[in-house]
Amino acid sequence: MTFNRFSYGFLWILLFSLASPDHSPAESLPNFIIINCDDLGYGDLACFGHPAIATPHLDRMASEGMKLTQFYSAAPVCTPSRAALMTGRLPARSGMCSNKRRVLFPNSKGGLPASETTLAEALKSKDYATACIGKWHLGHLPDYLPTNHGFDDYFGIPYSNDMDRVAVAPKGRQAFREPSIDFWHVPLMRQTNIIERPADQTTITRLYTEEAIKFIQSHQEKPFFLYLAHSMPHIPLFRSAAFAGRSRSGIYGDVIEEIDWSVGRIMESLRSSDLAKNTLVIFTSDNGPWLIFDDHGGSAGLLRDGKGSTWEGGMREPTIAWWPGEIAPGSVGRDIASSMDLFATFHALAKIDLPNDRVLDSHDLTPMLLGQGASSRKTLFYYRGYKLMAVRMGPWKAHFITQDAYGPGSRQPIEHNPPLLFNLEVNPSERDAQNLAAQKPDLLARIQQVVAEHQANLQVATSQLENENL
Amino acid sequence: MTFNRFSYGFLWILLFSLASPDHSPAESLPNFIIINCDDLGYGDLACFGHPAIATPHLDRMASEGMKLTQFYSAAPVCTPSRAALMTGRLPARSGMCSNKRRVLFPNSKGGLPASETTLAEALKSKDYATACIGKWHLGHLPDYLPTNHGFDDYFGIPYSNDMDRVAVAPKGRQAFREPSIDFWHVPLMRQTNIIERPADQTTITRLYTEEAIKFIQSHQEKPFFLYLAHSMPHIPLFRSAAFAGRSRSGIYGDVIEEIDWSVGRIMESLRSSDLAKNTLVIFTSDNGPWLIFDDHGGSAGLLRDGKGSTWEGGMREPTIAWWPGEIAPGSVGRDIASSMDLFATFHALAKIDLPNDRVLDSHDLTPMLLGQGASSRKTLFYYRGYKLMAVRMGPWKAHFITQDAYGPGSRQPIEHNPPLLFNLEVNPSERDAQNLAAQKPDLLARIQQVVAEHQANLQVATSQLENENL
Repeated sequence: MTFNRFSYGFLWILLFSLASPDHSPAESLPNFIIINCDDLGYGDLACFGHPAIATPHLDRMASEGMKLTQFYSAAPVCTPSRAALMTGRLPARSGMCSNKRRVLFPNSKGGLPASETTLAEALKSKDYATACIGKWHLGHLPDYLPTNHGFDDYFGIPYSNDMDRVAVAPKGRQAFREPSIDFWHVPLMRQTNIIERPADQTTITRLYTEEAIKFIQSHQEKPFFLYLAHSMPHIPLFRSAAFAGRSRSGIYGDVIEEIDWSVGRIMESLRSSDLAKNTLVIFTSDNGPWLIFDDHGGSAGLLRDGKGSTWEGGMREPTIAWWPGEIAPGSVGRDIASSMDLFATFHALAKIDLPNDRVLDSHDLTPMLLGQGASSRKTLFYYRGYKLMAVRMGPWKAHFITQDAYGPGSRQPIEHNPPLLFNLEVNPSERDAQNLAAQKPDLLARIQQVVAEHQANLQVATSQLENENL
Repeated sequence: MTFNRFSYGFLWILLFSLASPDHSPAESLPNFIIINCDDLGYGDLACFGHPAIATPHLDRMASEGMKLTQFYSAAPVCTPSRAALMTGRLPARSGMCSNKRRVLFPNSKGGLPASETTLAEALKSKDYATACIGKWHLGHLPDYLPTNHGFDDYFGIPYSNDMDRVAVAPKGRQAFREPSIDFWHVPLMRQTNIIERPADQTTITRLYTEEAIKFIQSHQEKPFFLYLAHSMPHIPLFRSAAFAGRSRSGIYGDVIEEIDWSVGRIMESLRSSDLAKNTLVIFTSDNGPWLIFDDHGGSAGLLRDGKGSTWEGGMREPTIAWWPGEIAPGSVGRDIASSMDLFATFHALAKIDLPNDRVLDSHDLTPMLLGQGASSRKTLFYYRGYKLMAVRMGPWKAHFITQDAYGPGSRQPIEHNPPLLFNLEVNPSERDAQNLAAQKPDLLARIQQVVAEHQANLQVATSQLENENL
């Protein structure tokens, strides 16, 4: 036997393990990166079928990893979706939703309650370094900022990039069509301090990327969790000069291509730091595309409707998981999965016990990701505020209430009795002609029973979104 | 210098070249395979965004080759589309279209005129072995069969698999929903002889595949052209027992997964025969998905409408080009391309002069395929029969007339003056809200000029489709 570099490395790990008997060596725990986009559509990436927007880095990420084709956010709008991702719990349980206010606004007094345990807090129990870079939107008052929710570092904007619109900005949509950064008085923060106001949104994707790479490169010794939440492609759209006019698809394409560039830079920094094999990267979005903004909004691909609705386009996200050596290259994960599942998944991979003092809505995705079997998730609940609109059970989706997002014409909810019943794997576009409710009364009865059980166990919290300075 | 296998191979080629000074060595000419599907939708493959149908072999083909995202058939229905692919000419020039009859039927007396030069005939000039396996649909009378149009071999059905419906079959769509092979008296032919009637459609995809592999394996010495035209996923849907219930997506998914299996077998036979590096394979479809058949029809993905219409879903095809060593792995070709362009492309690669006695509508795609530059094609004409419905110029599409394929409600043509004007790279779904006609009068004028030039040069032939036994 000869001692080569690897053998020495192994010996070193062995000695380290012996020296700390109660604690797995930090090196054996994987790093986690979540790249979360804002209003990215299911159909916006080349690897998810967009014909014109070029996303070579995301395509490469997919070809080296797994494309998840039935991965959902927990809500069709921002604040509740992000609260659920962070806590592994439906927004109704934390009060991070509302039937009156879709999201938190600059006049909101509420935020993610301290009683909730975030992914960052959980990972701190294993001494992870944690950073939140980008849009937070779970409360902008000091108590609610990322640094009070388990993140060592925070750099970004505390809510949406279209908030704090100033009085002199053009009225209506004109401000979005020809945007200037001065139209929105959005703060850029580091830790709990405002460092720039208004944030220069033209350089924001690049800045986030540079901050992310700095964080990755400075944490080679202990495991880390990086939550990189792009504020794009939420309107108003901005991109740096290098990307202006670069895509075939107008400003929206430019913005996506800059995010793709950012992903490429992150992956490259992982490769060059020799961290790739020890880092699970998840790329996803908070909700579907904001279709009313036409060429400033994205595409849900073959899915129906977009942001704000509980049709598939509102909540199914273009998701990629990448972990060289662990996730099979070019694989496709077709199990039902939720962004809430990242909570249990990261717990399992970081060998942390799940909290037993609260109800979780989180399923461990490692069997699917690592090709060891199917996910245990068989159901998914589609909420709009506190209202249960639809439920998915296996391939089936039953719509109890439908409501178009923001489309022209009807925005009134329509109750369905019996519910609309679609097989989403046969009819992913939810075409009305394929409503099978009349043919499947027994299945509908089973679904109603699952819903009854779910609702019996759902303890809702008071809305944080309705607590406002008026 | 040592003489290894490759050096010997090189020497041998060199000697062979010297021995035949007037003729390139056969070995230097690439083989061509076109795999053409019937009614496959733009959104039906995993690599083009379908979330549930599993197409691992086509995904691999795309990751080893090039996905073409703006590749069009020349017509939204079968006969004209195939005539154009075979001749590099718009169907109106050969008379292979009609305003009254969409396609050829069993009572048709016409077919592709002998005066047309097919891809197979052209390649015969360089001594290619040629085979047509599958659905032909360019005339079933002896004069018009593949063996009279440049193909050494023919095996398949001469027209659509839903023709020759027998009187005792269930009426309406019931025959398609619970199909039996006895409902259609479709002949299976070898050369000019009927060898089975009705064709056993349950084994037809497998049989075509076996025939194709036999042809590939028996032509290792001289270059070949294989035109493999699956009769699926055109209704009535059939798949072999091995694929019944295999997909998540019902019978339609099963059928696509069997085609995917077939593609895998073809690729494997090319690899194992050491022919992969000398074979260009094109996978595509004749027109969009037949949406009225609900779960027996496919999906156009993010594109609007399907088979029969000149909306994008009717004519843009999920296309993959594969040629190891020549086409960059994982590349995406976003230039406008037409199935008619295969004519000029194969001529260029096989070093055959294009015919100069007729107008062609064909552009050489090798610059795009080989990563050497952009295609010379800048325009595309969308025909329904002899009627020009729309034109594409660069990213722009102007609709002069729209007509839904077969949808519920209006099938009446709607004339637009000014035309509807969409930027397809910004608005691939042709959303009406993004009609830019009012903002771009100068562009519309340029498009009108291009159309006038096109029409001045279009000599139409008498319809072959209206020549029927009544």
